[in-house]
Amino acid sequence: MFTVDLKNQLEQYSKEVSEHLVEFLPKANDGQAQVVKAMRYSLLNGGKRLRPVFVLEFCRMCGGDVQKAMAYACAIEYIHTYSLIHDDLPCMDDDDMRRGNPSCHKMYGEATALLAGDALLTHAFEICAGADFDDTKNATAVSLLAQNAGVGGMIGGQVIDLKYEACDPNISEILTVHKLKTGALISAACLLGCIAAGADEEKIALASKYAYLIGTAFQIKDDLLDIYGDEQKLGKHIGSDAENDKTTYVTLVGAEKAQKDVETLTASAVEILQNFDNNEFMVALSNYLTTREN
Amino acid sequence: MFTVDLKNQLEQYSKEVSEHLVEFLPKANDGQAQVVKAMRYSLLNGGKRLRPVFVLEFCRMCGGDVQKAMAYACAIEYIHTYSLIHDDLPCMDDDDMRRGNPSCHKMYGEATALLAGDALLTHAFEICAGADFDDTKNATAVSLLAQNAGVGGMIGGQVIDLKYEACDPNISEILTVHKLKTGALISAACLLGCIAAGADEEKIALASKYAYLIGTAFQIKDDLLDIYGDEQKLGKHIGSDAENDKTTYVTLVGAEKAQKDVETLTASAVEILQNFDNNEFMVALSNYLTTREN
Repeated sequence: MFTVDLKNQLEQYSKEVSEHLVEFLPKANDGQAQVVKAMRYSLLNGGKRLRPVFVLEFCRMCGGDVQKAMAYACAIEYIHTYSLIHDDLPCMDDDDMRRGNPSCHKMYGEATALLAGDALLTHAFEICAGADFDDTKNATAVSLLAQNAGVGGMIGGQVIDLKYEACDPNISEILTVHKLKTGALISAACLLGCIAAGADEEKIALASKYAYLIGTAFQIKDDLLDIYGDEQKLGKHIGSDAENDKTTYVTLVGAEKAQKDVETLTASAVEILQNFDNNEFMVALSNYLTTREN
Repeated sequence: MFTVDLKNQLEQYSKEVSEHLVEFLPKANDGQAQVVKAMRYSLLNGGKRLRPVFVLEFCRMCGGDVQKAMAYACAIEYIHTYSLIHDDLPCMDDDDMRRGNPSCHKMYGEATALLAGDALLTHAFEICAGADFDDTKNATAVSLLAQNAGVGGMIGGQVIDLKYEACDPNISEILTVHKLKTGALISAACLLGCIAAGADEEKIALASKYAYLIGTAFQIKDDLLDIYGDEQKLGKHIGSDAENDKTTYVTLVGAEKAQKDVETLTASAVEILQNFDNNEFMVALSNYLTTREN
């Protein structure tokens, strides 16, 4: 499934996105340099750039201008990055490592890491509101991003996740956490691509369905990798769910069914992509995600 | 200076703003209720509502619709409130009390307080982008808010402030911190009022000058209150700057000159207000701030 073309194209995307992420960093004089360094450090600390790629590819599949959509792609990666910095803080998951490197607060201290996260979130909206589209698209993009990053989306998922650490959630509750904590931002990415391209309601509804399916598959795969993954390839310690005695999709249904569900969900997601032109790359990417090792 | 009218009008504003702050809270089901409770707790924990009042009054002085501007007024108070929650966290100022009540993390725990701050910041932009103005005003408002809350504004001021804890800043460096840490959000408030009213460039430039002067006066007064204030009236422990051996404007120029500067800056700010119609309330409010006790 993982063709050379997919790999090259992903690498090319990743390189381009990284360059733009840096270009969008706020200017800083000496006094503020430290927080911008911390923002840059976390922005450039690897990652698959999956959310930016979803923005750019949905824009392309809907016939939009991919270069102009780069602002939305970067805005969502700023939000994803802020969420990782705050998640790693001692009062949250207390993770010292992120993708094989020290987490932001281990490099720059807790206060600077907290502020770097706040700044990434803040500037995500500035990037979005100032994108090279008309104000209606930009205002819609800001609202969509805020809704999916907020209490009805990513933050809501984190809050419920915190709550479930103290009790045993059932399958439906775990799927709700997945939908909010991971799915909401993936959904925002696909929809931002549609907005950038001025796609119609029908395409937006299809993108939303695709995002739900692929987001759920993605999170179940994450839970599987936390048990069966390779620490080297993942760049982080595995087994943290088991150590925390955490109930996950995999502990509830078993690894075999979980991997089968990843494949079924992905197949349904790929089915939806048949409604879009120029979908070859997204089909290949979606299938690759079921077999990914990091 | 502090006439009965000013007091009544401020109380009326404060009541109205508080009601709208609650109305703008995101809907939450059971799982997310805790973070919305924490947001609400901090939003309603007193405060002079100075920034919202600046938005509404500049809108009124420029002939705009004050009720419609309430969305921008609430958005900026959401940002102010998030900054206080994150400032109070153990990795920042580690303050247990805020306005006479336990700070957010003492009430709800650090993880929930962190997320409540993140959520307030996120939803501020949603409120702004969805205000009952045209998309151009809303996109401009989002950009302005993000710029003033970000690295070039409030967060930048906090970063420089952290740095100066380790060395002795001079007057000019302290004024830069004031301008960014406090002034930027006050400036955003005055300008959001102008944007809401569709004010011209000239009025916007005047509002910006006013904001700089009143913001600087406000922060020097804060430093004075930390030495000479009444803990009961302030609702917080005083003397923290001295305990931390912190260099402030007051330690550098002395209390007498500092109070005189507050009055001179305020007089210049009031002078600028003469360029606006219906300025009586803002003149009274500005003068009151020089003699405030909390």
